[in-house]
Amino acid sequence: MRTIIDVARGVRPADLVVTNAHIFNPFIREWEENSLAIQDGRVAGIGKYQGVHELDFHGMAVIPGLIDAHVHIESSLLTPVEYARVVLMHGTTTVIADPHEIANVCGMAGIEYMLSTRKDSPLDLLFTLPSCVPATPLDESFEILKAEDLAEFIGREGVIGLGEMMNVPGTLNQDPEVIRKLALSVIREGHAPFLTGPDLQAYIAAGIQSDHETISLEEGLEKIRAGMYLYIREGSTEKNLKPLLPIVSANTADRCSFCTDDRHADMLVETGHIDDCIRKAIASGLEPELAYRMATLSPAERFGLHDRGALTPGRLADFCVIDDVNSCNVIRTFKQGKEIRDLPYLPPPACEYLFRSRVPTVEEIRIRGEGIARVIGIIPGQIATESLTYEISGESFIDPGRDILKVVAASRYDNSRVGTGLVHGLKLTEGAIAGSVAHDSHHVIAAGTSDEEILQACREVIRHRGGMVCVHDGVSTTLPLSGAGLMSEDPYSRVFEQLTQLNTMTDMIGAITNPFMYLSFLSLTVIPALRITPGGVFDCKTFAHVPLFIDDGET
Amino acid sequence: MRTIIDVARGVRPADLVVTNAHIFNPFIREWEENSLAIQDGRVAGIGKYQGVHELDFHGMAVIPGLIDAHVHIESSLLTPVEYARVVLMHGTTTVIADPHEIANVCGMAGIEYMLSTRKDSPLDLLFTLPSCVPATPLDESFEILKAEDLAEFIGREGVIGLGEMMNVPGTLNQDPEVIRKLALSVIREGHAPFLTGPDLQAYIAAGIQSDHETISLEEGLEKIRAGMYLYIREGSTEKNLKPLLPIVSANTADRCSFCTDDRHADMLVETGHIDDCIRKAIASGLEPELAYRMATLSPAERFGLHDRGALTPGRLADFCVIDDVNSCNVIRTFKQGKEIRDLPYLPPPACEYLFRSRVPTVEEIRIRGEGIARVIGIIPGQIATESLTYEISGESFIDPGRDILKVVAASRYDNSRVGTGLVHGLKLTEGAIAGSVAHDSHHVIAAGTSDEEILQACREVIRHRGGMVCVHDGVSTTLPLSGAGLMSEDPYSRVFEQLTQLNTMTDMIGAITNPFMYLSFLSLTVIPALRITPGGVFDCKTFAHVPLFIDDGET
Repeated sequence: MRTIIDVARGVRPADLVVTNAHIFNPFIREWEENSLAIQDGRVAGIGKYQGVHELDFHGMAVIPGLIDAHVHIESSLLTPVEYARVVLMHGTTTVIADPHEIANVCGMAGIEYMLSTRKDSPLDLLFTLPSCVPATPLDESFEILKAEDLAEFIGREGVIGLGEMMNVPGTLNQDPEVIRKLALSVIREGHAPFLTGPDLQAYIAAGIQSDHETISLEEGLEKIRAGMYLYIREGSTEKNLKPLLPIVSANTADRCSFCTDDRHADMLVETGHIDDCIRKAIASGLEPELAYRMATLSPAERFGLHDRGALTPGRLADFCVIDDVNSCNVIRTFKQGKEIRDLPYLPPPACEYLFRSRVPTVEEIRIRGEGIARVIGIIPGQIATESLTYEISGESFIDPGRDILKVVAASRYDNSRVGTGLVHGLKLTEGAIAGSVAHDSHHVIAAGTSDEEILQACREVIRHRGGMVCVHDGVSTTLPLSGAGLMSEDPYSRVFEQLTQLNTMTDMIGAITNPFMYLSFLSLTVIPALRITPGGVFDCKTFAHVPLFIDDGET
Repeated sequence: MRTIIDVARGVRPADLVVTNAHIFNPFIREWEENSLAIQDGRVAGIGKYQGVHELDFHGMAVIPGLIDAHVHIESSLLTPVEYARVVLMHGTTTVIADPHEIANVCGMAGIEYMLSTRKDSPLDLLFTLPSCVPATPLDESFEILKAEDLAEFIGREGVIGLGEMMNVPGTLNQDPEVIRKLALSVIREGHAPFLTGPDLQAYIAAGIQSDHETISLEEGLEKIRAGMYLYIREGSTEKNLKPLLPIVSANTADRCSFCTDDRHADMLVETGHIDDCIRKAIASGLEPELAYRMATLSPAERFGLHDRGALTPGRLADFCVIDDVNSCNVIRTFKQGKEIRDLPYLPPPACEYLFRSRVPTVEEIRIRGEGIARVIGIIPGQIATESLTYEISGESFIDPGRDILKVVAASRYDNSRVGTGLVHGLKLTEGAIAGSVAHDSHHVIAAGTSDEEILQACREVIRHRGGMVCVHDGVSTTLPLSGAGLMSEDPYSRVFEQLTQLNTMTDMIGAITNPFMYLSFLSLTVIPALRITPGGVFDCKTFAHVPLFIDDGET
């Protein structure tokens, strides 16, 4: 402490002085030509300073390290340290991660696994505790995480709050277990898709403070008016930035952050991370200074992280150099005053997990009957699905001509359970795809144009104890996910290659872009409207399984 | 909890519904025509609700309860509950108070006294712990409050942080006792008059987050850029609002609050409190919505008080009705959903205090010598003084013609100590004034046009064990301060009358407006430039007592 204060006063030289920097100041949302003195990983002062090392930035723009307000690292398909290697290159220095996926498949041990990676991660991994494992009482998970279980993690280094409370009915009905979970922390993350009116007011009255599931302008305005922090999401398939951007102004930028929620490694490598959100926001007309505020100080303040989000005395010297204020291409990243360069691949810690899925029989996935069927309708760019109906006749339940495919979910936990349904929007014209990432229970999920290929894809996923597979003409292309059946344990460059190969294959069979991300959400019971689980077709509105075929009596 | 959520959902009626309100929303800084459902003292929801009681506001403007970010309640001359009665009528529902004055004269017991008044106060009294008792090692106090003493108050209900760290040199030099105090809380209030450049950077690097002593635009800009929260002060004599207002914009309003620091009861009654700051800010051209933001959500967020500062679900139903957005005259105040009306006077708890001051002898206050004398120069509207020099000759040291008066400080703690000096700017043409409020040690301080009247005024103050006295033509007008020699224990209306009488008298003898407030700051050693203490004339720059007369060798 004495040292940094002596450096700030100018009575001893700093470890490092960065000169001629065009520094973004999020407090006033302006840029300043100045020098930055860094000592012991923190900013000592802004102004004229002498350093043991000096680095001339020649007028380049410098921004505080970027912050992702809400992410599931598992969704990148990378282990946390590999994830860190990728996003640091894109200027991200802190992520608020919810280890919800691994907690579903590994329970408490999954959270421990994620926490254990902090020591090897040059990126600051801060965690919110998954509040809904399983996602709903009707979902399956490795174990049920109760408030008393989560309580064991409170106070642990790197744990900063309670993760997204997806149990909206339980919150509104004041389920005692939900109340106990909400009482664990003063930071309580929300998940309130389409929630509006009195129910939204009640959800907020229960103490929930944020939302990242907002997709429409009207919904976002209602939430921000009601006092919620809004995380504007831009994931691999969740594209909420453009519609929500009009909410952001000088008056509201302190309440808005960016988040990625679920972004595959290929998008991270090719398109970027929060830097990509900034670029898209500026390209869509947002004042750059507001975009940078949203990516730095706004999330820092939301989480009470007063040690970051700005480059002022005493805060972490997390920053990056960008090519230009408007284009925001990250050239160099510094974490705690040290440049991040050539990080080596570190094999991840061992990850033990249960994986009981069994390849279904043809009989198990056979559809019987005909008439008006419920079909899950994919909405491009969204997690939400539509509840469609199609007239299905005779033997050909699968009808690529109408983009109707069979979708199968085989339980990871109880291998007697297999559910079968129909999906519209995946666009496969031949072959099949399958994966062991299937929110939130992460069963084996598969969709395709023939039973045979669906089962082949499932077999390949199960053979690897988790993975993503594309089957075409009898040939399987596979990305094995040996990290709990959710993450690859390989270097990100290898994962990127494998994902690229998979994408090539899925393009060949006509699939929608990012078919595996859409596939993974087909089983997500907490967001409307229709889903598939090992229990069958699931209606998210009535919160119950429903028959595939609508009876004559129904409409 | 269940009840408020049920009310929010609309499944049971609210305690109270306020309809047809023009409600200010600080999150978006806009107004909204809506209704407000209140249950158990909190906001349940905004929207259409049914209430057991309903109150039609006929389109009147409603704002969240106002917050004073930094105040010494003792400076009002009222006990806390009387103070509450006054400011509640002006729409203030929360104050962040630093019991620094009473802590100086009563030590730990003084802080206990203030905390004990919370239970009887309908105003939320939240305290920061006085970090500098005594103000400097050269000052006197009843007892020295060390970090270990303050630690006893940490975690107590109503204690929210560490109060203004006035020991700037101790902070910069990393005095171990200062470090221990700074480690007590994550909320650390600052006091950094004129601090700039590397020393300001170092002060912030030490963890200090706010400043309310800023008087110039340039100073304010530097501080806000460096990440400080800025409290724009408008006290009885500290008028910082106008010069600092250009700092406030849509980009910075979240970092700016209002505070009063030291405001006498008469100003509170006649002019108001934070409502007065808002009116002045709007009259000076600030967008009303930014002024309301500064007075509500900004201080709430700065102190992590997420239960107030806005009227959204779950927050305290603290609000007021104003006549008009631009004029901000408070008509009705509601605290936790209940209208504040006809609060009775409650006799304050007993306040024991030491009061050893003795009336000095004529000999003790005699000035010897002649030549160039150091004269404390009052700056109207500021706490800071100038260090003036005047040629003083012969017997007439007191020279009302040049507005040079004698000023005397007689120790409250060690009655052998009396200091004498000269002051310019009080403007008395006859008579004398004296008081037992004299920052920060609160000795008896007096100034006047003759030794005889100065001593008469001192005698009257001491006879009452504290008070404010004006002597004119042999007649004393007195406001007794039986609460630790700092506060009157009478109802505020009585204090107002007595202050009005005192003002009439001081006007008659030609004094500057608010002479007692200026007088009280003449002994404040922590703000430049020249002061008077029982040890004599004090130079705040060299931090040492200096002779009244400048030797020939000096310049």
